[in-house]
Amino acid sequence: MPRLRLDLAYDGTGCHGWAIQPGLRTVEGEFSAALERIVRRPVGLSVAGRTDAGVHARGQVAHLDLSEPELLSLNGRQGSSPNAETLVRRLNAVLPNDLRVLRGELVPESFDARFSALWRRYRYRVADQTVAQDPLRRTQTWWTRPLDVEAMSQAAEPLTGEHDFAAYCVPRQGASTVRTLYELRAERVGPGRIDVWAQAGAFCHHMVRFLVGALVTVGQGRRPPAWATQVLASGQRDGSVPLAPAHGLTLEQVAYPAGAAALAAQATKARNGRPSA
Amino acid sequence: MPRLRLDLAYDGTGCHGWAIQPGLRTVEGEFSAALERIVRRPVGLSVAGRTDAGVHARGQVAHLDLSEPELLSLNGRQGSSPNAETLVRRLNAVLPNDLRVLRGELVPESFDARFSALWRRYRYRVADQTVAQDPLRRTQTWWTRPLDVEAMSQAAEPLTGEHDFAAYCVPRQGASTVRTLYELRAERVGPGRIDVWAQAGAFCHHMVRFLVGALVTVGQGRRPPAWATQVLASGQRDGSVPLAPAHGLTLEQVAYPAGAAALAAQATKARNGRPSA
Repeated sequence: MPRLRLDLAYDGTGCHGWAIQPGLRTVEGEFSAALERIVRRPVGLSVAGRTDAGVHARGQVAHLDLSEPELLSLNGRQGSSPNAETLVRRLNAVLPNDLRVLRGELVPESFDARFSALWRRYRYRVADQTVAQDPLRRTQTWWTRPLDVEAMSQAAEPLTGEHDFAAYCVPRQGASTVRTLYELRAERVGPGRIDVWAQAGAFCHHMVRFLVGALVTVGQGRRPPAWATQVLASGQRDGSVPLAPAHGLTLEQVAYPAGAAALAAQATKARNGRPSA
Repeated sequence: MPRLRLDLAYDGTGCHGWAIQPGLRTVEGEFSAALERIVRRPVGLSVAGRTDAGVHARGQVAHLDLSEPELLSLNGRQGSSPNAETLVRRLNAVLPNDLRVLRGELVPESFDARFSALWRRYRYRVADQTVAQDPLRRTQTWWTRPLDVEAMSQAAEPLTGEHDFAAYCVPRQGASTVRTLYELRAERVGPGRIDVWAQAGAFCHHMVRFLVGALVTVGQGRRPPAWATQVLASGQRDGSVPLAPAHGLTLEQVAYPAGAAALAAQATKARNGRPSA
């Protein structure tokens, strides 16, 4: 069966997270409903990052399988060769405009949006001065008191690498909380504007938001930079680490290896290792 | 009486434009209501740019006058010297978060937010490819078909300078439509993303949106670049110039001369010249 990769973007404000939930508007629910309107049957979506309620995405990746006849039937009007762009256009025509399909392409069957991913990259936006409280970014930015970015950077640096992040997540039953954090960086990008970037093979549940919560606590001067590492070493959730609000967080990018063999190898590795996304 | 300058930002989506209208939520209405809650009397606001319904601002400027006792009374709690920052803080505490006061300062009495302004600068955001249809910017971006930015630039360049812009505005009774356009520039700022910048001493009603409408018409290949100048020369509104949607437009900056004397001189000049903002 032909497999399609879809690159998705959405404003998480109006959705109760990715996963379908009965009676609630969700990101998966909206994309699935749009697909069903076009393909005329329920179509399952696999996704790279199951974002929490209120979290946004600009670089989410999903895959789905269509039959050859379904792929052919997409191209009713123009008579040119059937392709993923047709599906993108038709999906965007029926989707509400807080959800978009940015790109579509046919991929090898070994491509798995979740298991073939090499890493995920998130950005967390903070405004720490009144002058940066941009109303046009209010649904994507945490407005806080002034922060010491130097202290945040000192706290962040030793958290990178492979660690057990049990102290910075809500564990899932039976799942490992060991992760490799490739990057955790707080950067002042303008007067009153700070971006925190977090990149890892995969993240545990709420991990980025707990990490940002710890960095902001340090930035406010309420804890010294070394405290973030002490919390990590304790292996236990610390009540003084706040969960940063969901609306500051955006999934910006998911990376995959090139080529069918490498995609399959990465998927095998991820399935045998840490299944959380 | 002490005069205060306030720098304002707002998401125009939820407001019916700047000016107070009975029974409608407006930008002026919201800021005035917040001021009245603090000062406990109606306070008039003068503004640099009376934005249309749906138009946003990140660099709007307004002024208001308080009495000395009112200014003193602002600083009830902390006992330090009264200042504009206190008003900013208290206004933001009562304002809904789609409207913000970014800065406040005491200014000379010769400062007039409307008449002392040297120029206004607007940005119009366009996305002309699917990949650039960012849901997080959807309330601030016009999504169009692919555009030829080179043709748009050719159309824009001869429109700069002093001209009668009657063909590109809805004239107000008895007001001149001669304006000096310092800049009109279409720039590709990323894949599928185009910003149009317009800077003038003052703009006529709907002028930026008609100019953008003409540039986009040229960018789509439906008219040659020289057509924009022919429309200008005709001196009459042309039905084939579309009014670009309000939501793509943001007032980014208003500039003032430095010093009380220059502020007063500019205000006198503007009052005797073209009163529209």
